[in-house]
Amino acid sequence: MDVGFIGLGSMGSAIAENLLKAGHRLTVWNRSPGPAERLAARGARAVRDPADALRGEATFSMLANDAAIRSVGLHGPLLESASSGLIHANLSTISPGFARELAAAHAEQGLRYVASPVFGRPDVAASGKLTLALGGRSVDVDALRPAFRAIAQTTVIVGEAPEAANLFKLAGNFLLATAIESLGEAIALLRKGGLDPAIFLDAMTERSFAGDVYRGYGARMVKEQSEPAGFALKHCRKDVNLAIDAGRELAVPLPLARLVGANFDEAMARGLGDKDVAALGGLIAAKAGLPTREPLLSAA
Amino acid sequence: MDVGFIGLGSMGSAIAENLLKAGHRLTVWNRSPGPAERLAARGARAVRDPADALRGEATFSMLANDAAIRSVGLHGPLLESASSGLIHANLSTISPGFARELAAAHAEQGLRYVASPVFGRPDVAASGKLTLALGGRSVDVDALRPAFRAIAQTTVIVGEAPEAANLFKLAGNFLLATAIESLGEAIALLRKGGLDPAIFLDAMTERSFAGDVYRGYGARMVKEQSEPAGFALKHCRKDVNLAIDAGRELAVPLPLARLVGANFDEAMARGLGDKDVAALGGLIAAKAGLPTREPLLSAA
Amino acid sequence: MDVGFIGLGSMGSAIAENLLKAGHRLTVWNRSPGPAERLAARGARAVRDPADALRGEATFSMLANDAAIRSVGLHGPLLESASSGLIHANLSTISPGFARELAAAHAEQGLRYVASPVFGRPDVAASGKLTLALGGRSVDVDALRPAFRAIAQTTVIVGEAPEAANLFKLAGNFLLATAIESLGEAIALLRKGGLDPAIFLDAMTERSFAGDVYRGYGARMVKEQSEPAGFALKHCRKDVNLAIDAGRELAVPLPLARLVGANFDEAMARGLGDKDVAALGGLIAAKAGLPTREPLLSAA
Amino acid sequence: MDVGFIGLGSMGSAIAENLLKAGHRLTVWNRSPGPAERLAARGARAVRDPADALRGEATFSMLANDAAIRSVGLHGPLLESASSGLIHANLSTISPGFARELAAAHAEQGLRYVASPVFGRPDVAASGKLTLALGGRSVDVDALRPAFRAIAQTTVIVGEAPEAANLFKLAGNFLLATAIESLGEAIALLRKGGLDPAIFLDAMTERSFAGDVYRGYGARMVKEQSEPAGFALKHCRKDVNLAIDAGRELAVPLPLARLVGANFDEAMARGLGDKDVAALGGLIAAKAGLPTREPLLSAA
Repeated sequence: MDVGFIGLGSMGSAIAENLLKAGHRLTVWNRSPGPAERLAARGARAVRDPADALRGEATFSMLANDAAIRSVGLHGPLLESASSGLIHANLSTISPGFARELAAAHAEQGLRYVASPVFGRPDVAASGKLTLALGGRSVDVDALRPAFRAIAQTTVIVGEAPEAANLFKLAGNFLLATAIESLGEAIALLRKGGLDPAIFLDAMTERSFAGDVYRGYGARMVKEQSEPAGFALKHCRKDVNLAIDAGRELAVPLPLARLVGANFDEAMARGLGDKDVAALGGLIAAKAGLPTREPLLSAA
Repeated sequence: MDVGFIGLGSMGSAIAENLLKAGHRLTVWNRSPGPAERLAARGARAVRDPADALRGEATFSMLANDAAIRSVGLHGPLLESASSGLIHANLSTISPGFARELAAAHAEQGLRYVASPVFGRPDVAASGKLTLALGGRSVDVDALRPAFRAIAQTTVIVGEAPEAANLFKLAGNFLLATAIESLGEAIALLRKGGLDPAIFLDAMTERSFAGDVYRGYGARMVKEQSEPAGFALKHCRKDVNLAIDAGRELAVPLPLARLVGANFDEAMARGLGDKDVAALGGLIAAKAGLPTREPLLSAA
Repeated sequence: MDVGFIGLGSMGSAIAENLLKAGHRLTVWNRSPGPAERLAARGARAVRDPADALRGEATFSMLANDAAIRSVGLHGPLLESASSGLIHANLSTISPGFARELAAAHAEQGLRYVASPVFGRPDVAASGKLTLALGGRSVDVDALRPAFRAIAQTTVIVGEAPEAANLFKLAGNFLLATAIESLGEAIALLRKGGLDPAIFLDAMTERSFAGDVYRGYGARMVKEQSEPAGFALKHCRKDVNLAIDAGRELAVPLPLARLVGANFDEAMARGLGDKDVAALGGLIAAKAGLPTREPLLSAA
Repeated sequence: MDVGFIGLGSMGSAIAENLLKAGHRLTVWNRSPGPAERLAARGARAVRDPADALRGEATFSMLANDAAIRSVGLHGPLLESASSGLIHANLSTISPGFARELAAAHAEQGLRYVASPVFGRPDVAASGKLTLALGGRSVDVDALRPAFRAIAQTTVIVGEAPEAANLFKLAGNFLLATAIESLGEAIALLRKGGLDPAIFLDAMTERSFAGDVYRGYGARMVKEQSEPAGFALKHCRKDVNLAIDAGRELAVPLPLARLVGANFDEAMARGLGDKDVAALGGLIAAKAGLPTREPLLSAA
């Protein structure tokens, strides 16, 4: 396919590279030019104007949040120069309300919009094994299949409404955030009781909590390894806050989400925003009076 | 081995049966006689005085809580009539403090004590695939191996101190309880947003949350199936409260545990104590104003 | 003074009437005409175009939230037709961020903006004894003094930055919301323990918790009186959410606010939004399995 | 009256002194002899055996918790040597369950028991203006009136059941603890927003939150004054935990209490147990990344 790509952070770059490898023609744009140049060296066409990334059959975008999408203009101004009938697959994790707004803005310009938020860390993205939650019309989703095949192992059709896919994604990241907080509390309890949390983690993740989340983040917490950040704490916090906001709008009490949100606020105040979300474990340990390897918390 | 067994609830009966099947000689006692008679029909010797279950090489006990153990006398009086050198493998989930007390009481009588709390629901117990967390001296643990092989797939040596195994168990059940609350909140959010939670559960448990806990309890919640109770809500609540108490003693803040504890209180007040712990999902849904199949919550 | 007034709900009407009584010339506008007509009968000039309420020396506004202010146009369009040098005293409880935006928009048009959020229920407003938190330049605040004297017993100069007054107001309403939740929990505990909460309330509010908040809302809770709504639950919920959002932006963990926020979500889902915020007490009682007079909760 | 007094900490000593001043004959006992000697210098009779403090018409006790009362023997052994018909007024804050046990133990020995937990800090005790919550038979309460008049300004008859007075007291201290946490969060929000919390406290406590609690603890928090401890953080934590335990037993969800309990755990882990409970404000500030004068938190 002839595909544009907007937003080349660690996730976006890894995804774009898989599109290239699979033989798609790729036009890439990023606010800072470095990542676009690196992809150009591998065969992509780097452009200076994001509008030029909206001229093919489809455009993928992977931006940090609602504000970043607005600042590029994908909520309106930029769409005026898009090819007729272009399908925009928005991989970003945004609020359901903004997804609704974006879908309407695209429809107004005769464009097609498929919410396509992704599950997976950069290493999963690099291996082409992401999970995509898809919200859009079947015909649009099907048209994107050749590209999706290059980047995802699993695609889940959530519904026709784009915002459904975004709510789905937020629910998933809420599960993730509470699992991390919960693991952190369990580990702190064991450490303060004089036990080795590695033995606990091994036993728990053998079968009961066998998934990647408990295994991966648990191992990072046990080793107190919060760098490099696979999933930055500040991004996970953003997603939890979006889940809370969605709960507010729908009047769904989410006490766990709200409590975890308060702990993320503390982590931000302590300067942990750019660390891996597993750094929450270090904060929880510090709050229990345990020693921690995290320099930002060392005095706690 | 020549083994006694005290406490034949659904878990105890399933475990005792596996000991029998593996060829161990079994002497069983239970407060109400029915379960002991059923095991007698399969070859066990049923006794009326629990002291008679303390005459072999080892005794297993599986009782509901600290109070039940005290009421049988296993914290003192009953021990006086035990065979010299008997090893007591206590499978019950109790507080670390009580485990310490029990170990001391056994030592005083020249008896050996191995904390052996189990992970697994009755169906796992029936299949002989439990996980045991073991706290005790190696020589005692090794002496119990022939019996453990009949009931458990995995044994984890937590440490020499019995209370360590109990803290380990409480940390595990705390993970479980927060996973259930978290799943319940995610499902309520999705349902109120008009999404099908079954699709979400499938996607999440494929890899990220692939363990038995998310799969099993998630499926029950999606189907709103809270009977029969594999793991009764009131028992899970007890364990969360024990974890909180352990955190208090060690000065480890466990905000998630405490919050989940409050929700369990509400579930008790609404009459859900004997349902499966997955019934927490129904309560969470009711709190979001969603319809629920649970008659006790139907008006919410 | 020659004063405009925009927004004549129960609070706005009571305040406007005090301005009239004190001899100020009043031009009033409201989306629905009834309240304006009632004030016209007492000497105000009712106008159909809100722009006509921006032609005097000062304009007061009392609107429900950020969105209501935008829909009237007070964030921009409407300001273009205001008298030169007009001072806008915004009594509404809004987010600090929006206050900043409004102040900038006014400055751009050569207008003056004083954030003036009020503390007090409609009966306090009617008696002219409100407390005003003021954020603005001294010269502007001083110019408004003749009008403030007619409506407030106390004015607190929070600072020159308008948003400071709004943050101040949100902190106050957060205190209020947690006091209500806390009273509700204490009362439920006592009632379930068979005690009379009225005796407790009397003793506690004699000296330790002697203020209006514990006395007033406590009495409503003890009597389970949630109508008429002095301060609607949905409005209090809005303010708690604004406080949480302010905490998020400043990275201040507000676990209590967040938890209370979840309970407000549940109250909304149960249909209590238009009741007095004291209705939270009924919800808390229902969650403890206590009978309640609130029909919406009666089955709980 | 001829009165015994057991337990002469800062509260006990202040109360005992008022009994002396009012002309009562006082026999005092304390584990460490210093405080008893100081009262002996003012006319009390100091004894070495606590049983000797049980020989008059009435005995007051003021001990730290359930365990301290057991260690003195007031739950049984010591009672055997008490004067026939002695009334024991227990001023200590203990669990309702233990109050029930104590009342039964007294009845068994033909003694009378009046639960008399007190509200007030040591300075209030010294001024003889405590509030007493009373649980016992009217005839016993009336017999104690002459002594109560010397120590309390207000007495509240909660009921005939002693445990009722203890539940009443726990509900009151739960209100106190949440008020402190809530104030701490509000102050942190304002400080991080650049506002002066003293102005806020003045405005809020003028009328809305006019009681001693908000005024007194608020002033300490604003000044960051956590020493000397009027009400030690560890004691307030104990009371919150007792309230939570009472809620558990009655199946009353107390989410606020539980959350505040977690914050107290953190305060303990950070070494703040012997500071005034207002030190919670410093911890909350540190969690928001604010500077604090508290040396134990200074690095946070």
